[in-house]
Amino acid sequence: MDKIKVIAFDADDTLWVNEPFFRDTEEKFHQLLQNGMDLDEVTKHLFEVEIANIPMYGYGIKGFTLSMIETAMKLTNHTISAEKIQQIIELGREQMEQPIELLDGVEQILEQLQGKYKLIVATKGDLMDQERKLQKSGLLKYFHHIEVMSEKAEADYQKLLVNLEIEANEFMMVGNSLKSDVLPVLNLGGKAVHIPFHTTWEHEKVKDSDLEAKEYQQLHKISELREIV
Amino acid sequence: MDKIKVIAFDADDTLWVNEPFFRDTEEKFHQLLQNGMDLDEVTKHLFEVEIANIPMYGYGIKGFTLSMIETAMKLTNHTISAEKIQQIIELGREQMEQPIELLDGVEQILEQLQGKYKLIVATKGDLMDQERKLQKSGLLKYFHHIEVMSEKAEADYQKLLVNLEIEANEFMMVGNSLKSDVLPVLNLGGKAVHIPFHTTWEHEKVKDSDLEAKEYQQLHKISELREIV
Repeated sequence: MDKIKVIAFDADDTLWVNEPFFRDTEEKFHQLLQNGMDLDEVTKHLFEVEIANIPMYGYGIKGFTLSMIETAMKLTNHTISAEKIQQIIELGREQMEQPIELLDGVEQILEQLQGKYKLIVATKGDLMDQERKLQKSGLLKYFHHIEVMSEKAEADYQKLLVNLEIEANEFMMVGNSLKSDVLPVLNLGGKAVHIPFHTTWEHEKVKDSDLEAKEYQQLHKISELREIV
Repeated sequence: MDKIKVIAFDADDTLWVNEPFFRDTEEKFHQLLQNGMDLDEVTKHLFEVEIANIPMYGYGIKGFTLSMIETAMKLTNHTISAEKIQQIIELGREQMEQPIELLDGVEQILEQLQGKYKLIVATKGDLMDQERKLQKSGLLKYFHHIEVMSEKAEADYQKLLVNLEIEANEFMMVGNSLKSDVLPVLNLGGKAVHIPFHTTWEHEKVKDSDLEAKEYQQLHKISELREIV
């Protein structure tokens, strides 16, 4: 680990709980629609709209809110009431106001690594929302800065390395998504540590074959990082 | 100008045309509402909702779209049809697909400054939307990277300087907004160049008294930058 200069942490479901809030919002969205479909069906339609909208909206709650409205239109043949659309907007806002629940051991490991490496947050999502969450988390003091990325593909990490003015082998990414935090970084020649979270968004799942011959470390808990750096 | 290491350019209405597209969308929004109000009244209400939503949504077209929907609800007492809400979502998308019209002399000056300074884009707005515009503009090759900022207040520029690892007096900001591009940078001890655009968003206006005893340069055209750096 001599070479590593920057350790980047994913935020949602790596530093704090996030995905369960989306699941919760989806349940509330299903309840307010009341269009006769079950939760899984509604979620499936919503997911399709979300994915179709990523090239335009990117990630984060504002795009998610617009996608819920669009899905509601589709699933009700445009018969949904303005009041219910207002409620959907409120669902989005409520999620933005979600409390921050730090995952176990996060603060301790950041304290230990601080000063030894440049620590940054590298996350997708809405810029202001992610900055607000970092602020609320109390973790701001451990990080050099936050990078909100529009995507986490190889090209985006390449841009991040240019911005940081370091080589790939001086970079380590820590996160819960094999697709966004691990594979693209390994492909560039960087180091990556995978810490699975109990729920993974459908869009972040990868095929087993994508992982063949890939060298990365998998940890159960973020506190185990101290054993490898 | 010996000390300057980084020149940051605002994007919207500094590198390319932007504000007129918002005015155009507001006109279309007024037309589809047809609630008996004139354009100025509708725009005034929309502006109030936008400003109230900035702490939650930040800047950019996704938040603007959500604010148009909210304004439409308010101004029609929730009687607006789902079809019209769909049309509002389309207005937002159309604006995201706006063509990029570079302002006069932009490409030439970037070509001249490239290599002499680290050039970056420092802009507010939606992350993905701003990256897409920069991509479409053909100007990407001149810039070290793009910084999409959730706000452009002193504290945000301070964070940018930390990120860039430079002192304030090594930083120059070029932009069309006295409020966002000039005053906060001067207050930190940086240099700032103001290039007014013919339209200024209400939210970006400043009082004359705020400008008293402030030292910055005002240019008519971006090409005049070559005379001062």
